[in-house]
Order: sequence, then structure tokens, then C-alpha cells
Amino acid sequence: MSIKITGTGSYIPSSVEKNEDFDKHEFLDSNGAPFSHPNEVIIEKFKGITGIGERRYVKNHLTASDIGFFAAEKAIEDAKIDPETLDYIIVAHNFGDVKHNAIQSDILPSLASRVKHSLRIKNPNCVAYDILFGCPGWVEGMIQAQAFIRAGMAKRCLVIGAETLSRVVDKHDRDSMIYSDGAGASIVEADDSASGGILGHKTASFTYDEAYFLYFGKSYNKDLCPDTRYIKMDGRKIYEFALTNVPNAMKACLDEAGVGIEQVKKIFIHQANEKMDEAILKRLYRLYKADIPEGIMPMSIHKLGNSSVATVPTLFDMVRKGQMEEHQLNNGDVIMFASVGAGMHINAIAYQI
Amino acid sequence: MSIKITGTGSYIPSSVEKNEDFDKHEFLDSNGAPFSHPNEVIIEKFKGITGIGERRYVKNHLTASDIGFFAAEKAIEDAKIDPETLDYIIVAHNFGDVKHNAIQSDILPSLASRVKHSLRIKNPNCVAYDILFGCPGWVEGMIQAQAFIRAGMAKRCLVIGAETLSRVVDKHDRDSMIYSDGAGASIVEADDSASGGILGHKTASFTYDEAYFLYFGKSYNKDLCPDTRYIKMDGRKIYEFALTNVPNAMKACLDEAGVGIEQVKKIFIHQANEKMDEAILKRLYRLYKADIPEGIMPMSIHKLGNSSVATVPTLFDMVRKGQMEEHQLNNGDVIMFASVGAGMHINAIAYQI
Repeated sequence: MSIKITGTGSYIPSSVEKNEDFDKHEFLDSNGAPFSHPNEVIIEKFKGITGIGERRYVKNHLTASDIGFFAAEKAIEDAKIDPETLDYIIVAHNFGDVKHNAIQSDILPSLASRVKHSLRIKNPNCVAYDILFGCPGWVEGMIQAQAFIRAGMAKRCLVIGAETLSRVVDKHDRDSMIYSDGAGASIVEADDSASGGILGHKTASFTYDEAYFLYFGKSYNKDLCPDTRYIKMDGRKIYEFALTNVPNAMKACLDEAGVGIEQVKKIFIHQANEKMDEAILKRLYRLYKADIPEGIMPMSIHKLGNSSVATVPTLFDMVRKGQMEEHQLNNGDVIMFASVGAGMHINAIAYQI
Repeated sequence: MSIKITGTGSYIPSSVEKNEDFDKHEFLDSNGAPFSHPNEVIIEKFKGITGIGERRYVKNHLTASDIGFFAAEKAIEDAKIDPETLDYIIVAHNFGDVKHNAIQSDILPSLASRVKHSLRIKNPNCVAYDILFGCPGWVEGMIQAQAFIRAGMAKRCLVIGAETLSRVVDKHDRDSMIYSDGAGASIVEADDSASGGILGHKTASFTYDEAYFLYFGKSYNKDLCPDTRYIKMDGRKIYEFALTNVPNAMKACLDEAGVGIEQVKKIFIHQANEKMDEAILKRLYRLYKADIPEGIMPMSIHKLGNSSVATVPTLFDMVRKGQMEEHQLNNGDVIMFASVGAGMHINAIAYQI
């Protein structure tokens, strides 16, 4: 039996927020003090490190569950399945539905219930639940879906990553420029006749020292309400953590799958920061004493920013559907999904097309 | 191979909120109008239906992840295991950590990361994630844990249900008297030599008409901030829904397990409302044309209220540890866990001690 992705879909918000749109922001350091450089310099430096030139925000009337639903509809259409035949709907996110101008996360009911409701699925045997697992949530949802399939509890699952980080950013924090909105979805199912599919996976949760590297914290602007919290991160620690631990987890995944690095044709990695992803890639290949093949790592961060759980499934969807000219996928290709984020969690899947 | 619960623990908050403590509340109907009856009558009627005489609230300095950690510590101690040997930590909740006097849910990092951090577990292979699944979250976490065990991905898991509903209640809503705080935890593990354990399970998600029976809504007091949301429910619809669907799901679970109703020694059901639970029980036995055995359904709702994901694991822990004199569990006994809640989700597990 193989466990294969038979359909994908994504929702890329239509509103483009360019780097220039941050020109007038009052950026402050973590002590609330202004920077000595003008915003132009801050933004230029930011772009140099992260690669982000623009990002996408959802329109005011939309929430994470709405865009998760849009992505899900496309994945269902792509897989040409009857949604009533789904055994699971798994939605990964980190802040729930946060309405425009609201500060509360609305997770009652869970986003999976909302998406299933919007899909007009009647079948009560389709189990809908949410997973909170930082940015690696969609990859982890895929790993959970394959567990249910292997355990004989499911044959066909819908896994969604949906996030609206634009609703939880501190406008006075330079890191706010990283965050973006988006949703990606995939149909994963058992196929008795096919080969390939999910070959192996690896998950690791580092919480001893790392649990609060990403956290919900106060604005850097001390004049704002001290009770209102925003997404915050210790970027330097995350960078070092990721470089130390992500390559090892990716290698452990390939080892479990019995796959050599030379077989890997594409690596779809969570895009939080271009320089970090390039450094992770470098260290991964160094573990094998191998050269990095050209075009191994498709990137959409320049135009789409960091949409958390949505970066990997949206990127895969774009490449799969031929929307990135320089990247092709062929039958039998071994690829990799990998992610790292709040928790701190790391995971990876080795997958054969 | 059997999949057995080898340890349990719970945290019952120390602050008792009696029904009399609601005497001075200004209860309003959903239109914001006061009731014609005095509070004494409202409270008496409430007690007659729900059975709730008092409930527990956490102290101001505690959050859901704190009490989940306390329950987890006890379960680990009870199972006599090294926490470093855990393969999964699954935390079920519905509102995350809501601090005293705050209105934001803090779910970054997820509660499972926080609990693992507090347990001082270093092993990165212990995967920590949160599940949002309404009140049936702990039961569903158990079902997911057994899936990972069956799929060969885990041998030993910690499943926690933790909730502080006192932080999300609308004081002007009579239903606020239902909600309570609490946490329950269990260690579930593969045992090659033992028999029994999890015999079967059933989960159903009803979202077509039912997704918003429980929701995050405005206060009934129209003078309060219209942007602040609280736990709200359509009690009448939930009652009818539960009576129609929970007994069928419980029977489907027993059928899957190959267990007859006469074998079932105890039913640990989610306690939202005593009258509802009694009616569910009646309908379940009617499906089998059997009489209800005396003492089949332990209840703690009178003293503990509805603590959402925590009702089932705390009740099981109490009975398992002999804290409810009139209820005993013996080796070989077949019991049942069952729950219903926001989503709307229903689930059940048939389990042999």
C-alpha cells in the first residue's frame, strides 16, 4: 500500500503588502526605543536576510478558516473526489480565526468544523479536528493522516494549513514584515496498486530550552495596551536552533525512508527566512559531503512572505501545477517536505511522486 | 498487543464556586432583557436540570497548561514511568491559556509544548501537539494515541485534557453556571503481554447543521464591549442533538469492539448536564431493549460542574483510585468512555481494564 497525495490546492490572498508599505511604520526595539537608522535602511537589511520583497494579506472580511476552505475546495476538485468520502479533515493553524480589528482568537468551534461545514459535507464519519503545532502543522497533519491510514482508521484525508498572521502582528516590531497570510490543502489517500507516496517521516519537539523562542508577547510600543499580545520571536536563537537541528532531522527522515541524498529531486522547506533556508540546505548536504544540486529548493518567500503552516503546501501546489517555470516534478521523483517553527518543532517527510 | 492505560492523574482546582455565589449576578436573556424570576428560582431550576451544586475555578495565577502539567505529573507518577520515554504528549483544550482578567487565548507555543517544557523532558523524539475537538478532546486524543501505537509510531503516550472555562464565561448568561475548570491526564501504552485495553472506538463529527451549536459570542449585556466574545451555546439544540446521536455512536463503538451492553460495567460520559446524561443512558439501553444496571454511570458533576475535556479523565481517575466509594473497577471489567461537544463531535471508546 502506498499513501499518496492525489490533489492539492491553495489560497494566495489578493492584497499585496510591499516592503515600501512599511516605510511609515514606527519601528522600535524590544526596549521600546527607536532605531538610529531610517526605515529604508531597516527594510533593505530585512530584505537582504529574509529575501522578502512583498507579502500577502487577506481582505478584511476573511478569516483563516475561510481561506482554508477555499484551498480545500481546490484540492478536492484537483483530486476529483467526492468530499463525502473523506475520513478526516485536519486543519493546522496557530491563532485560529482572528477577525479584522479583533484581538481574540476564535477557535470555538474548531477551524476543521468550520471548514467541513463550509464544504457542506454531511457524512458524520468524516472526523474534523485542529492541530496546533507551530509552522510545521501542515507537515505534521500529513504525518497524522498517514498514521490513521496505516492504523486502518482512514483511507482518504484532507490536510489543511491556514493562517492569517497579519492579524497578530505588532506593527512596531521589525519582524512584523516577515509575516503573511495564506492557506494550502492536500488530499492524501491509501492506494493499494500504486508505489511510492510517503516513504518515511521524522518529527522532533524541542521544548527544554526552546519552548518560548516564539511566543505571544507585548507590543514594543509601551504606550499600547500592555494586555494585548502579538506574535513575537527571538530570531537569533531560532536561526541558530534551526541550523543545528533541522539538517539532522531531515537526514533522519531520509535514513528512515532508505533514501540517499542524491535521490532527492526537490526540497520543499518552510520559508521563514531565505538566508536561514539556504544555510540549512548547506548543512544538510555537508552531512552527506555532497554538493547542492541546482534548483533543489523552490522558493516563494520573495513574493509571499512567511505564511506559517501555509508555506509548504502552497509552494508544493504551485510547483505541482507548473506555476513555477524553473521547477518540474516527474513521476517517480523523490521529494522532501520539511518544516521548523514555534514549539519548537521540526519535521520532515520523504515522498515519492 | 493491547493498548492500556497505565497511569492517571487529575487536577481539581481548590476554589469552590457555589450556586449561591451566583445570587448577585445580573442574568439576562439572549436579547439582553432581565428575567421575571429572581435568581434563587433561576438557580434552583438550573440545579434541577444540570445537577450542578458547585463547581471549581482555578486560582488567578494559574492557566490551563499549568493545571494540565499538574495532572500530567500525577499520571506519570502513577504509571511509574520515566517521562523521557514518552513518544507523544497530546493536549486537548478549547481556549488555550487565558490569563486571569485577559480576553486573549494564548496558544503560542501550544499547550503541549508548555507542558513538556514544565515536565523538563529533554527527549526531542517526544512529539508534543495540541488537539482542538470540543469537549470530546481527551477521548479523541486517546484515539489518536492508539492510532500512533497501531501504526508503529509510538509505544507510550501522555494524553491530557485541560480547560479553564471560568476565563471565558459571560457572567450575564445563566449558562455560565455550568462551566468549570479542571485537568485530567493518562498514560496509554502498548503492552505485548497483556490482553484487554482499547477494544474499539467510534468518532463522528456533525457539522452540516450543528457546527455552531456552541460558539464564541457576545455578552448578553449589550453595554459590554461588543467585540469581546465568550463561550455560548444553544442548549436546547445540543440536548436534542445529543439524545439523537450519542446513543447510536456508543452502540457503534461497542459493536466495533464486539462487546454486548451486558458486559459493560461502567460508563464514563462527558458531564455537561445530569438530565441529559441520564436521558442518553436511557436511550442507549433502549437500543438493546435492556434495563439500566444500577451504578453504571459515575457522576461528579454535582460538585465539579462541566470542565469540558477534563470531565471524563478526572472522573475515571477518581474512580480508578477509589475516591468514589460506591464505584469499583476490577481487572477484566469492560468500561466505556463517551463524550459529546462543540463541533459538534461525538466519540466513544470501549476499554477493558
